[in-house]
Amino acid sequence: MKVTALAGGVGAARFLSGLAAEVRAEDITAIVNTGDDFRWMGLQICPDLDIVLYTLAGQANPATGWGVLGDTFACLDRLSLLGMPDWFRVGDRDLATHIARTVWLSQGEPLSAVTSRLCAREGVACTLLPMSDDAVPTLVHSAGGDLTFQDYFVRLQCQPVVKAFTYLRAAETAPAPGVLEAIEGADAVIVCPSNPLISIGPILAVAGVREALRAVRGRVVGISPVIEGRAVKGPTVDLLRQLGHEPSAAGVAKLYSDFMGSIVIDEADWSLAPRIVSLGMETHLAPTLMDSADARRRLAARVLAAAGCRT
Amino acid sequence: MKVTALAGGVGAARFLSGLAAEVRAEDITAIVNTGDDFRWMGLQICPDLDIVLYTLAGQANPATGWGVLGDTFACLDRLSLLGMPDWFRVGDRDLATHIARTVWLSQGEPLSAVTSRLCAREGVACTLLPMSDDAVPTLVHSAGGDLTFQDYFVRLQCQPVVKAFTYLRAAETAPAPGVLEAIEGADAVIVCPSNPLISIGPILAVAGVREALRAVRGRVVGISPVIEGRAVKGPTVDLLRQLGHEPSAAGVAKLYSDFMGSIVIDEADWSLAPRIVSLGMETHLAPTLMDSADARRRLAARVLAAAGCRT
Repeated sequence: MKVTALAGGVGAARFLSGLAAEVRAEDITAIVNTGDDFRWMGLQICPDLDIVLYTLAGQANPATGWGVLGDTFACLDRLSLLGMPDWFRVGDRDLATHIARTVWLSQGEPLSAVTSRLCAREGVACTLLPMSDDAVPTLVHSAGGDLTFQDYFVRLQCQPVVKAFTYLRAAETAPAPGVLEAIEGADAVIVCPSNPLISIGPILAVAGVREALRAVRGRVVGISPVIEGRAVKGPTVDLLRQLGHEPSAAGVAKLYSDFMGSIVIDEADWSLAPRIVSLGMETHLAPTLMDSADARRRLAARVLAAAGCRT
Repeated sequence: MKVTALAGGVGAARFLSGLAAEVRAEDITAIVNTGDDFRWMGLQICPDLDIVLYTLAGQANPATGWGVLGDTFACLDRLSLLGMPDWFRVGDRDLATHIARTVWLSQGEPLSAVTSRLCAREGVACTLLPMSDDAVPTLVHSAGGDLTFQDYFVRLQCQPVVKAFTYLRAAETAPAPGVLEAIEGADAVIVCPSNPLISIGPILAVAGVREALRAVRGRVVGISPVIEGRAVKGPTVDLLRQLGHEPSAAGVAKLYSDFMGSIVIDEADWSLAPRIVSLGMETHLAPTLMDSADARRRLAARVLAAAGCRT
């Protein structure tokens, strides 16, 4: 059984760690958002690829949702003394990933090959694919002006009110090698409980991805990142509201209904089910809060069942 | 009183720390070798500028002769796990210097401005000048083939037998702004007890430097890095021998005699004095081993006296 997942950052990483306990890691392909990638002090940082990699390698810091467990900040502290900005917190071990990645990219390796190399070194057997080998930066159009994504997300802590996002050049940019094949050939395509606008949205915007998903709609299943009108982490609910979407599991389902046959929503949101069913989507109720390794695993099993891969 | 010094790495750094105890730091300009600068994992490293900077800032690791005191190696250890070479030991704090320097260089700042900025941040009041803002890499022609400098010096631990050095494009490369003026306007120009072939040699090779020194020969004073046929640190004696020079204070003096009016040699080498005097150089005997802060300071005072700046 082949399973392909569309993934953002920490929520996706946690779900994937549950999935890897239910499905052979070799049979999992994660297509990861790179819309928030950026250059930091000359180094290429891919926050979502990194948190997924660290989580699957058992090295993630669960307290922060970013970085390496037990990391130190000696380099960043001295960079700060030297007058460099320190609002993006890069630890000493984390830094090694960015240095190695930047060296390999500068030698002409595409990001997908670099990512595969990092996975091999970390002993991660899942296939991690960047959504594209080319840059598709997410731009944030806020009430106060346009921002780069990390300016908005980390430096300004998601405080600006967002009017729109642009996934720059997405429609003209090819997905990374293997992305469309992984969607077409999967027994189940899972849309992780990530932010639909800034994590999944960029992936969907890359040329051909949404069309490929529509073609296999019956095998696409999502998990709502919104539970009772709240998100476990991040600005999902605020952003849905700011961009005119309903800040609920039903609002998320509506964003996906053209390519998603089934969605798993939290059982607390049972009253939303009829409205989601009316969008033509199978609606499954389950506990979706991933507050333990067991909970992650049970959610993964429930999602696989919703996709028709388990009885 | 203005003092200008030509400086290599650790020997020069130690001498300069003694000099800074005798002369106002604001009146000291050090022209530092950059022939061993190189790119390491995409970052610009200037080993001699760094050790001089760290030493004057009171941050150097005296046990190693490179790096920052108390530094950690979390990043390098993980780079090694990722398959990157780890023979050049860059600590986490040290790394911050290289990252900041590389960022500023990439923004178009010349190395001299970057160095000045680092000095200001570290509270170093001496003026540190790279010998040039442009790259003048020292190439090592060994019996087994040509090597980059750090390959020879660090990776191969100076084991290859050297046939010649090339200071690439030195004769066509301008010194950094202020270098010639610092030589012309100084009351004393001190050639630090550094390796004459790989530390001082590259500085002398930069366009106009040797000529500028010749023009003020009476004010140029050197310190022999060789004591009783041995060097305190590094391959000085082996290299002198391999390149056909006498491996002694007299051999060093001969390399400098065209532009150096006086030299301070160790009192243990008293028997060499007549031969050095015969080169037209004032020869001063002093304890030159810098095995304490006091010894550094006394040597600096002795050198200033030899240059006629003290009675």
